[in-house]
Amino acid sequence: MTTMRPPEARAADIPAPLAAPAAADGAWRRRHLLDLDDFTVDELDLVMRTADTMKEVLQREVPRVPALRGTTIVTLFYENSTRTRSSFELAGKVLGADVINVAAASSSVTKGESLVDTVKTLQAVGADVLVMRHSRSGAPYLAARTVECSVVNAGDGLHAHPTQGLLDLYTMRASLGDVRGKRVVIVGDILHSRVARSNLWSLTTLGAEVVLCAPPTLLPAGLGRGLEGKLPPVRVETDLDRAVEGADVVMALRMQLERMHGGFVPGAREYSRLYQVNAARLARAKPNALVMHPGPMNEGVEISHEVAHGLQSHVEEQVQNGVAVRMAVLWLITRNSTRQARAATKGAL
Amino acid sequence: MTTMRPPEARAADIPAPLAAPAAADGAWRRRHLLDLDDFTVDELDLVMRTADTMKEVLQREVPRVPALRGTTIVTLFYENSTRTRSSFELAGKVLGADVINVAAASSSVTKGESLVDTVKTLQAVGADVLVMRHSRSGAPYLAARTVECSVVNAGDGLHAHPTQGLLDLYTMRASLGDVRGKRVVIVGDILHSRVARSNLWSLTTLGAEVVLCAPPTLLPAGLGRGLEGKLPPVRVETDLDRAVEGADVVMALRMQLERMHGGFVPGAREYSRLYQVNAARLARAKPNALVMHPGPMNEGVEISHEVAHGLQSHVEEQVQNGVAVRMAVLWLITRNSTRQARAATKGAL
Amino acid sequence: MTTMRPPEARAADIPAPLAAPAAADGAWRRRHLLDLDDFTVDELDLVMRTADTMKEVLQREVPRVPALRGTTIVTLFYENSTRTRSSFELAGKVLGADVINVAAASSSVTKGESLVDTVKTLQAVGADVLVMRHSRSGAPYLAARTVECSVVNAGDGLHAHPTQGLLDLYTMRASLGDVRGKRVVIVGDILHSRVARSNLWSLTTLGAEVVLCAPPTLLPAGLGRGLEGKLPPVRVETDLDRAVEGADVVMALRMQLERMHGGFVPGAREYSRLYQVNAARLARAKPNALVMHPGPMNEGVEISHEVAHGLQSHVEEQVQNGVAVRMAVLWLITRNSTRQARAATKGAL
Repeated sequence: MTTMRPPEARAADIPAPLAAPAAADGAWRRRHLLDLDDFTVDELDLVMRTADTMKEVLQREVPRVPALRGTTIVTLFYENSTRTRSSFELAGKVLGADVINVAAASSSVTKGESLVDTVKTLQAVGADVLVMRHSRSGAPYLAARTVECSVVNAGDGLHAHPTQGLLDLYTMRASLGDVRGKRVVIVGDILHSRVARSNLWSLTTLGAEVVLCAPPTLLPAGLGRGLEGKLPPVRVETDLDRAVEGADVVMALRMQLERMHGGFVPGAREYSRLYQVNAARLARAKPNALVMHPGPMNEGVEISHEVAHGLQSHVEEQVQNGVAVRMAVLWLITRNSTRQARAATKGAL
Repeated sequence: MTTMRPPEARAADIPAPLAAPAAADGAWRRRHLLDLDDFTVDELDLVMRTADTMKEVLQREVPRVPALRGTTIVTLFYENSTRTRSSFELAGKVLGADVINVAAASSSVTKGESLVDTVKTLQAVGADVLVMRHSRSGAPYLAARTVECSVVNAGDGLHAHPTQGLLDLYTMRASLGDVRGKRVVIVGDILHSRVARSNLWSLTTLGAEVVLCAPPTLLPAGLGRGLEGKLPPVRVETDLDRAVEGADVVMALRMQLERMHGGFVPGAREYSRLYQVNAARLARAKPNALVMHPGPMNEGVEISHEVAHGLQSHVEEQVQNGVAVRMAVLWLITRNSTRQARAATKGAL
Repeated sequence: MTTMRPPEARAADIPAPLAAPAAADGAWRRRHLLDLDDFTVDELDLVMRTADTMKEVLQREVPRVPALRGTTIVTLFYENSTRTRSSFELAGKVLGADVINVAAASSSVTKGESLVDTVKTLQAVGADVLVMRHSRSGAPYLAARTVECSVVNAGDGLHAHPTQGLLDLYTMRASLGDVRGKRVVIVGDILHSRVARSNLWSLTTLGAEVVLCAPPTLLPAGLGRGLEGKLPPVRVETDLDRAVEGADVVMALRMQLERMHGGFVPGAREYSRLYQVNAARLARAKPNALVMHPGPMNEGVEISHEVAHGLQSHVEEQVQNGVAVRMAVLWLITRNSTRQARAATKGAL
């Protein structure tokens, strides 16, 4: 039989749980997480090491720490999401923060309030961190310019999904170690994918070799020359068989059904014949190459059922790592918040 | 004037709050709660006694205990519900768990993600317990086969609503003591009622005499011979006046308005004339017979206003008991979870 | 670098956080907050002073106190709202309460359950406080007559929005001190505004001079003679230029777009030409007159962009004060709850 100890006893057992990554605090100057396009190697490294610490917290008997006690996180989602919203919510709660969910569809947003007014209001209510998903690219930048609290981009239009890029990186490193020189093939609707864009920045910064593969209609113009001139050139392929040759990672992107009917591809059957990640194609990659997908998967379209759930699939691990990575992000950005600054001044935290 | 003590002091006052029912831990081997069809007398007994302890917790000055601190409960509701969802949410919070609500309508479920992928994702996010309501019978079984975390069925199609069965049992025992030999009349749309099915299993297991009463069109075939051959035969009546004779409990079921228009009954007026639980009919039951209803009630249809709110009505008590019973279920099933097993190995909990 | 202390240490640092306002406990006898129409000067004063204490809590390094630990707050919103719902949610969480959100659109309310049954059910689930918004005037009164837990009106139809009135008062007092003799101009759709009604009661009780300004079609009949005969007469103006002369506060009300098309005003352009609070009009008020708005604002309609975000705007401060004022209300009304009464009897709190 088990007996209960009051929570105090347990909490008191926790020895300065987040000391390790904090040692590198000097490398971190950000108050927001909007994109990975300007992340340095050191910053990516710090997020990864902080996520290691958070992963250790998640494996404890009582996986809770009071690191963000007194912090208010507001999730503001203008698009529906199960995994991203609940992942952020749990990340906040594990760290002892309070989390308030605002779904745009059931908020005064429907009264036509502007984004600027909404985020100002939520800051005034007391948000320390605003985790925001919006269908328009750039919306979190507008929010970050407007408020003094932290803004975390949880996906904006076609532009960026930085915590997805970070959790993908974390998942790759857990199996591959350093990603420098590793070949990562991203296949699917590159044109409309904020996931691909965020991965592109982090992976090229760290020296991975990125291969993008899609039908020509789903590739942004000029991608081979480096996105917006800021990226080192990446290899672009329209033939998936050739693209996956020697890959260390094969990441399939979700094919939105509306693209199917939008004239971008001839149809689901044709698309999957040419671009589905299946066993035959995976065999061309390195043995034990990682299969990844940001989810939710359209099995039978961009990925076959057997590969989606096969031994090489890291899809669930990606979701698991998402919580640790988001804990790391929430913890790091609040280091530089107004409240923390005030607390540091008082020497009290 | 009142002064505040910090919460620690109060929590420290709590002496191993859940010791009593835990003494019978040996009787409990379940990780999921899917149905009551295979519950033993001992198991039903253990839930009832655990709920007694939980009820005591709810009556404390500060009705909170840290028994499930560090546990993540995700409610995944594919059908709307006020009372069941909020009852589970409060049950979890009273025990110190974190509760994350996922409503299917506002989740990526609408992106066509399969149930299997959704529950795998929520487990990967960190759910220790998945409380799930679904319109299709059997959905929680599919979930339980898929994940390693605990699954609690909060109602699946026409099949089962086990916590409702347990809270109904708890409510009966509170007034009647042992239900053995007691006559329980369930009246209404038996054919479509998961509430009736769950009550049937628990009540017959404990030796109650169950009488089912409905128009012939709303009775499942073969019910009089025992459901699926596994039940002892129950008495079936189509005449409510006869059915309620000598009843200890009269439980009215909600008449879904869509059945009215589906050809199952001639109409609401005709239905209520023949099958409404009203004062005249209640007078045929035992004095002080309990009136019960799973809610929400259609007053004037399956139950008259005066009986619904009369002295014999236990409808609100059912709702109250729901929280204590769900606390008991959450506490019992997490005894056998992966995390708890790990903790026990470490001798740490 | 920062190190973490466990939350206990911090909580223990808190010295009887709410002692100050509690000293005036004698002035408070309410269990519900339904309207401000019968508030005495002393009661308004007590709320203001309690809110001062709460504001101090919100400015702490860890802005959380365990004052309502063990209390369950249910928000029941039949109309959408970002700011009011999240403001109440945070107010509850800052005080250590558990908050359960029920949105009517996704609840069994859609099954046609009556308001009375819904609130009875939520009380039976365990609500200590029911924070309720409803489109019909008087709904919270019905709830308060039905349940024994506390009911807080978060806006009912055209009738009242008492916490808005209190936070507006708090905001005025922060800049103006005592409002006695101060001139407050409320301009806009007075006819349909619960905000105007609640402000009217509190302001006239405290001796402010209230001027209501609207097109004749948007003024309730008989307002100049005191609403329902209970109010001291207020000045009514249909000319905004004249109304704002010498004002200490100019409060613009939201113009619902549906009124535009409902024949109440000729059109948005005509309305804003005559009734928009803009720089030219504001110049007629006292120097540094406060600009207020309950939000969300239709910039360019009832208020110009430059005034909405100008130096005299207190709109964000209103939102900020909303949390402190709602903390005060939640704290005060639960002093007289059943649970608190029980606890006091036991001498334990």
